[in-house]
Amino acid sequence: MTDTAPETATGEAGTAWRRIADALAASIEQGEYRPGDTLPASVALAEQYGVHRHTVRQAFRHLAECGLVTVSRGRGTQVTAPRFPYRLGRRVSMRTNFGAAGIAVSSSVLSTQIVSGEAQHCAMLGLPEGTPLWAIETLSRAGGTPVGTGIHYLSVERFPGFDAILTEAGASITAAFKACGIPDYVRRSTRLAARLATEREATLLQLAPGEAVLQTHALDALPDLTPIHIVNSAFAGERMEMVVEPFGE
Amino acid sequence: MTDTAPETATGEAGTAWRRIADALAASIEQGEYRPGDTLPASVALAEQYGVHRHTVRQAFRHLAECGLVTVSRGRGTQVTAPRFPYRLGRRVSMRTNFGAAGIAVSSSVLSTQIVSGEAQHCAMLGLPEGTPLWAIETLSRAGGTPVGTGIHYLSVERFPGFDAILTEAGASITAAFKACGIPDYVRRSTRLAARLATEREATLLQLAPGEAVLQTHALDALPDLTPIHIVNSAFAGERMEMVVEPFGE
Repeated sequence: MTDTAPETATGEAGTAWRRIADALAASIEQGEYRPGDTLPASVALAEQYGVHRHTVRQAFRHLAECGLVTVSRGRGTQVTAPRFPYRLGRRVSMRTNFGAAGIAVSSSVLSTQIVSGEAQHCAMLGLPEGTPLWAIETLSRAGGTPVGTGIHYLSVERFPGFDAILTEAGASITAAFKACGIPDYVRRSTRLAARLATEREATLLQLAPGEAVLQTHALDALPDLTPIHIVNSAFAGERMEMVVEPFGE
Repeated sequence: MTDTAPETATGEAGTAWRRIADALAASIEQGEYRPGDTLPASVALAEQYGVHRHTVRQAFRHLAECGLVTVSRGRGTQVTAPRFPYRLGRRVSMRTNFGAAGIAVSSSVLSTQIVSGEAQHCAMLGLPEGTPLWAIETLSRAGGTPVGTGIHYLSVERFPGFDAILTEAGASITAAFKACGIPDYVRRSTRLAARLATEREATLLQLAPGEAVLQTHALDALPDLTPIHIVNSAFAGERMEMVVEPFGE
C-alpha cells in the first residue's frame, strides 16, 4: 500500500504508525515474514523508520488487533498463521468445515465416563437432574495440528454403548449418530467466550502456558429440535476462528 | 447435587473429583462463594476431602472448563461472574441485547481518524483499495463495567461527518445510522476468535495483564445486504459471551 495517505483527524502523528503497520503487513503478505517468525524489535524498527519506539509499538498493536501478529511478553512480536475458519450454521461439522478447505481432520476419544448429570446439562437435554450421562472427552486435529478438545454429554439410556460407537467412528459425532440411526442433526445453540487455557488444555492443544482458548458450549438436536447432545469445547485461540453468517444459508 | 452417583468407566477415582466439583459448584450457586472470591487452596481442600491434591485440581479444572472459576498462576482459583450474553443474529445491537436484560449500556468515542483503507477492509466494503475510511475507536460499558472496545471502519464519502454524528449519538452505531437516514441494518458476518489482550485493550477493559479477549470481526450491511460497516472488537473474555442460535429467529 502506498502512502497516498490520509488527512487524519489526529494529525501527522497518526500516519507514522500506520505507514509502518502497512509496510509490515505487506511484508507478511508477501511471505518475507512467515507464521512463527519474530518481527524485528521495536527499537530496531524505530531507528529504521526514524520514529519513536512508541510509534512502532502502536503499529504492532494495530497488527495484533488485526490478528496478523501476536505480541507477547518475552517472546516479542510473532507472525501468526491464518486461523482455520469454522462455520457455525444450522449444521455444524468439523469434518465438513475443514474437508471443504482440503484439510484433513482426525479426532480421537481420550476418555469416557458415565456421570450423574448436572442440573444445567440435564435441563438443556430435557432430562431429570441426575440422569446418567456419557461424558466423553475428545481431541481434534486439523492438518495434524491439535485445534480443539471437548467433552460430549448425552443420555446413556438413549445412546447405549455410545462410548464404543464413538471410538469406532473415529470420534466423529456425525458418524456415531448415523450408527445410532440418526442420519441428521442440527446445531440449536452455541455460546462462545474467551478464557485462558487450563493446564490440561494447554497440554492437549500444545499451547504455551497462559495462552487463550475459544470456549464453546454447544447444543445439538434432532431435526425437530429435540436436544440430544451437548459439547463443551476449547479451541486453540490462535488456530481457529468461528464464522457466523446469518444470511449465508 | 447428591452423590447417588455414577458407575464410571474409569472406576471410583473418577467420582472423587466429581464429588468435590459438585460440592464447590453448589457452594458457588448458593452464594457461599461469590464472583471474585478465591476458593480455598487445593492443599486445604485435599485435606478436607481426604483426597490427593491432584484430585482437587481436577475438580478445579472441571469448574474452569464449565466457566464457573478461573484458575490463574499466582492468583489461585477465582469464582467468575456470569458472562453477559450477547446474541449474534441477523440484527445485532449491544443496547438491544443488554437492554432486554435490564443492563444499561453506555459507549463513548475514544478517537477518530481518516485512514487510507486497507485492501482487506476495502474489499469487504466493496470499495477500491485506498478509499478514505473512518477509523473510529469506541469503548462500551455494560452496567458500568467496560465490556468491549472496537474500531469501526466505514466510507468517508458515503458517511460525511460520521465522527461527529457517532459522538453525538453516544457511540451508538444504530442511532448514528438512523441520523444518516438508515433506519435498519443487518449483520452479514461475524468472525470470532480468542487471543490475549494487547496492552491498550487491557488498560481500556480493565483487565489484568495476560488476560484473554474474544476478538470479533464483523460486517454490517443494508437490509439488501450491501456492506456498509466493519467493526473489529475485543471483548473482555471473562465478562461476555456470544450466543448463536440459528433457529432462534
